[in-house]
Amino acid sequence: MDELLSKIESPRDLRGMSILQLEQLAQEMRSVLTRLVETRAAHFASNLGVVELTLALHTVYDFARDRLIWDTGHQCYPHKLITGRYPLFESMRVRGGLMGYPNPQESDYDLFMTGHAGCSVSTVLGLKSGDDLQPGEEDRHAVAVIGDGAFPSGIVYEAMNNAGGLKKNLLVILNDNKMSICPRVGGLAEYLDRLRTNQWYDSLKHEVVKALNNVPVIGEPIEKLLRQMKESVKAGLHGGMLFEELGFRYMGPIDGHNLAHLIKYLKLVKSIEGPVLLHVVTEKGRGFEPAEKDPVFFHTPAPFVCGSDGQLSIKKSSSRAYTNVASDAIYQQMEANPKVVTLTAAMCQGNNLEKIRDKFPDRFFDTGICESHAVAFAAGQAKAGLRPIVDIYSTFLQRSYDQIFQEAALQNLPVTFLLDRAGLTGPDGPTHHGMFDLAYMRVFPNMVVMAPGDEQDLPAMLDFALKFDGPCSLRYPKAVSESIERSFAPIELGRAEVIDWGHDGMIIACGSLLSNCLKAAETLRQEGLDVGVINARFVKPLDTETLLRAIESSEFVITVEEGCLQGGFGSALLEAASDAGLSTSHVRRLGVPDRWVEHGDRNELLADLQLDADGITRLARELAGNRMLAPKHDPRRAH
Amino acid sequence: MDELLSKIESPRDLRGMSILQLEQLAQEMRSVLTRLVETRAAHFASNLGVVELTLALHTVYDFARDRLIWDTGHQCYPHKLITGRYPLFESMRVRGGLMGYPNPQESDYDLFMTGHAGCSVSTVLGLKSGDDLQPGEEDRHAVAVIGDGAFPSGIVYEAMNNAGGLKKNLLVILNDNKMSICPRVGGLAEYLDRLRTNQWYDSLKHEVVKALNNVPVIGEPIEKLLRQMKESVKAGLHGGMLFEELGFRYMGPIDGHNLAHLIKYLKLVKSIEGPVLLHVVTEKGRGFEPAEKDPVFFHTPAPFVCGSDGQLSIKKSSSRAYTNVASDAIYQQMEANPKVVTLTAAMCQGNNLEKIRDKFPDRFFDTGICESHAVAFAAGQAKAGLRPIVDIYSTFLQRSYDQIFQEAALQNLPVTFLLDRAGLTGPDGPTHHGMFDLAYMRVFPNMVVMAPGDEQDLPAMLDFALKFDGPCSLRYPKAVSESIERSFAPIELGRAEVIDWGHDGMIIACGSLLSNCLKAAETLRQEGLDVGVINARFVKPLDTETLLRAIESSEFVITVEEGCLQGGFGSALLEAASDAGLSTSHVRRLGVPDRWVEHGDRNELLADLQLDADGITRLARELAGNRMLAPKHDPRRAH
Repeated sequence: MDELLSKIESPRDLRGMSILQLEQLAQEMRSVLTRLVETRAAHFASNLGVVELTLALHTVYDFARDRLIWDTGHQCYPHKLITGRYPLFESMRVRGGLMGYPNPQESDYDLFMTGHAGCSVSTVLGLKSGDDLQPGEEDRHAVAVIGDGAFPSGIVYEAMNNAGGLKKNLLVILNDNKMSICPRVGGLAEYLDRLRTNQWYDSLKHEVVKALNNVPVIGEPIEKLLRQMKESVKAGLHGGMLFEELGFRYMGPIDGHNLAHLIKYLKLVKSIEGPVLLHVVTEKGRGFEPAEKDPVFFHTPAPFVCGSDGQLSIKKSSSRAYTNVASDAIYQQMEANPKVVTLTAAMCQGNNLEKIRDKFPDRFFDTGICESHAVAFAAGQAKAGLRPIVDIYSTFLQRSYDQIFQEAALQNLPVTFLLDRAGLTGPDGPTHHGMFDLAYMRVFPNMVVMAPGDEQDLPAMLDFALKFDGPCSLRYPKAVSESIERSFAPIELGRAEVIDWGHDGMIIACGSLLSNCLKAAETLRQEGLDVGVINARFVKPLDTETLLRAIESSEFVITVEEGCLQGGFGSALLEAASDAGLSTSHVRRLGVPDRWVEHGDRNELLADLQLDADGITRLARELAGNRMLAPKHDPRRAH
Repeated sequence: MDELLSKIESPRDLRGMSILQLEQLAQEMRSVLTRLVETRAAHFASNLGVVELTLALHTVYDFARDRLIWDTGHQCYPHKLITGRYPLFESMRVRGGLMGYPNPQESDYDLFMTGHAGCSVSTVLGLKSGDDLQPGEEDRHAVAVIGDGAFPSGIVYEAMNNAGGLKKNLLVILNDNKMSICPRVGGLAEYLDRLRTNQWYDSLKHEVVKALNNVPVIGEPIEKLLRQMKESVKAGLHGGMLFEELGFRYMGPIDGHNLAHLIKYLKLVKSIEGPVLLHVVTEKGRGFEPAEKDPVFFHTPAPFVCGSDGQLSIKKSSSRAYTNVASDAIYQQMEANPKVVTLTAAMCQGNNLEKIRDKFPDRFFDTGICESHAVAFAAGQAKAGLRPIVDIYSTFLQRSYDQIFQEAALQNLPVTFLLDRAGLTGPDGPTHHGMFDLAYMRVFPNMVVMAPGDEQDLPAMLDFALKFDGPCSLRYPKAVSESIERSFAPIELGRAEVIDWGHDGMIIACGSLLSNCLKAAETLRQEGLDVGVINARFVKPLDTETLLRAIESSEFVITVEEGCLQGGFGSALLEAASDAGLSTSHVRRLGVPDRWVEHGDRNELLADLQLDADGITRLARELAGNRMLAPKHDPRRAH
């Protein structure tokens, strides 16, 4: 098994391999990828698509010295397999194991930890610019591989514009597999379709262009017109005007599964001066028939087993995720109110919005991986009287920070933000954890910031948001949804829900760690401590009445949130208490501390961070113990 | 004076005016603009450039119903003059007066308050999309006017891609004045240069295209080649392939000062189906010779008087701004270390970087208004071993939030962020105040966050940052720089500077309001209160040793910062105190509260927000008074 692959210790071992050997290697790599996804959810179809491209790149370039950035990064598995990480491959996406994205801590072949789309052209331009400014480094080549899904991101255009101006030697490989995670949308997608069908009659075109170069054009203004016609024909034949206009030389499209072809063209572009865009056409899921047929499902499939009859059995979980609770709630709102529209940024599948897209095609907008535009677009719709819902992962919404500021909050427009994957997202790791949204949303005047405590809160909060006259956000994790039994208090602006009041201490839950808080309180009660729990619901406006009462009347208070401790919910409470002149020496905040949290199972990570029921219980015991053992400390008496 | 203009109460009064009358009106409007800038700093050259375009737009469209967005917004003065705000025009940019940007609170003709570049295409697409979904509103036209300076912003490309896919009726006017605030850069700029010189031989081209349409093409593959040639010629003749490829119909370039021409083309495009880009060439500073010659200086000139001899005398202030302190410090670092490079996003002038650009052309990078790219680009340079300085206004750096996260902080790369205009920027208003940076920077692990207390701190902090092995940021306001006399303590990571220690209370200054804090302390001392002052210097890592000692040993503590109170410096201190189990009931935070702060003189605004020496003094007196009058309040005894 893995006869050739198991011997590859570094990409330098590829040198001297024949095309036939490389093809065998490609086949072995595909087997490894397929074996992996039988055991766990992992990026699959995109990795199958770049096996040959990876091999060709590492054959033509020496990335121990040359510069390579994978954009978005989830297609780096083949790259990992041949850069010394084959022996570790079974640890992929497991805590302590390989990361599913490039990771500089794993290998010098990984330059940037990536995960958010579109930055590769910028970073590669930076790397090249840096090498060129340092004597002896100018010979290093720089390559970005970017998918057509990431390509519409604004930063790609910003970077190409800059690179075209700086005229750096730079290779951008457009890995065109006709897909983002979701089917691709927009003018650019149609343009790429045209380019792809526009075959490259190499020699014939070349001759025509050569001939045109010899046609003399003289006289005004007919001369000018003719010159223009001539240049048009040349440019039109070469194709890729859009890129050429920005200062890139466009080449392609070429077959991304033909190793000989790939190697030939890579060698060719390696010697070209100035920025080049090489258009490579690949097939997502290549070499595994079910994935070729359904690349959306096989982007990150649930673990499956392929039977001897070729039938797949998918190990699907029967539990319902918060994402599904949210999409059901959106569906209901869309049905009830024709002014409600839904926007997403290439996350139809991730956000489970396909049924909404299919049922309400006129009121559903997928902007592609263009979060900045999505928010400003929604703001325009809100200004025109619609009620847009922007459904984007917490971490990717960071791309819209400035549009949330200017287009939504500053104008006080009723845009509703649904932040999916808010919290620890599990095996994707630090690029995907949604750590910062409570801190970044609550700074903006006008913004209402909510976090549902359970699956009952979520639809009620969405309903509240869609009736509220201003921007609202609500966030929920990538987790199985839970329902807390209680007499449900309706959602009121800035009103927390007291689950029960405790005489010894209070736990204030911000968001869906509420269930862990309730478990902790239950344990503590069995131990004789009377601990109550509040479902905060609102981070902004804060229910200062209820929460400050908890601070005033309890021996200890613990706040619990699945987000960064800097500037988050707990900080908001400390601010309110300080403004009211209350002491908070008995308040402790649990949340994600000031470090990057690696990948791993969400529950493992929560336990690590003391955010599971046990962790909360431990802290409460500690605080209760302190109270009983130590005299009250009044700092103002110290001097 | 202003014979015609003074009678215009709404754009509807333009109807029926002859071209001659409109031309006279244009002249009157230019006089008003010139009179204004003789009295105060205001956007000038860009407004002179769009006088005719504004008149033509309001003649052809009815923006009481149709949709108009000015991008970036500072060129809206002519629009304000003819939408009922001529009588208020002298109040421009004065507190309580007209805002220098579109403002929905002033007029229904202003749909969005804009100020950050590039969002107009998105919002206009949203407006059109919203109108189209509401019966009876589909007839509303939608127009975005965007400068060539804003055009390279990634969000423009995202929006055009989306608009091209949605095929909405939409007019984007590219107001091409060959300038951003600074001379324009990048591949797109060169492309526009080519387009501009490519005159539009209307009828001739039209005939050729018509003829080509009648040429039959048959047979394969020659047929395919010929068809391609034919389409190329057609497209090349029309020009604007870059926009056409994205799904826009391109028209132009046309003369933006020829009213008859403008009106003719606007009427034409009004009837075209689908998205259109109309390329209009204007001259920045048009009609005022000194501004035509030096549009960079006349973008927002200092007040000047034009003598009868045509000589300008500019009322220049002799005081030195923090911006100049920063650019001098950058210059010195660039001289001393060849690895230091400087990046900005179209703010060569605003950040006073022209001398650096001229002296170190190879190590200076102006990306244009592309903040996202600028940060990722800098991260690439840092990875290659350079020491990049990213010099961007606090509010505009919001565009890079996600790149600061992923490309700089997550990779722990030594990118140094200089945040200019951090705080209340004065007459520009809420789109330009830098309120949020302390809150948004300090959430990221690895990030060092500093704020110089005076002009001595700034170069020392820059020096510190450039020697530190990780990302650092430092922020300073748009203000005259000050120097605090003291024995200067060198910059040490996470170390505050105690100016003096007070037995009654402590004021902790974060940043350059330090001088106000010192003045307040001086006044209080004269009143018999012993109040000390600390120059915090670091927001992250916080000097918990020094600052918590202040909390433990003082009767009251006041934190002072020129930024949002949510999640800012004061909150960081409350967090640290809570983590340490200290009471903070005697701590109060001064900063910018949770509302949008309007435009006005910075000192006026500081006074409004209790951030001047008087305000700080008042709060200290209050806290000292409470202490003397009220018994200590221990909340934990309340129940």
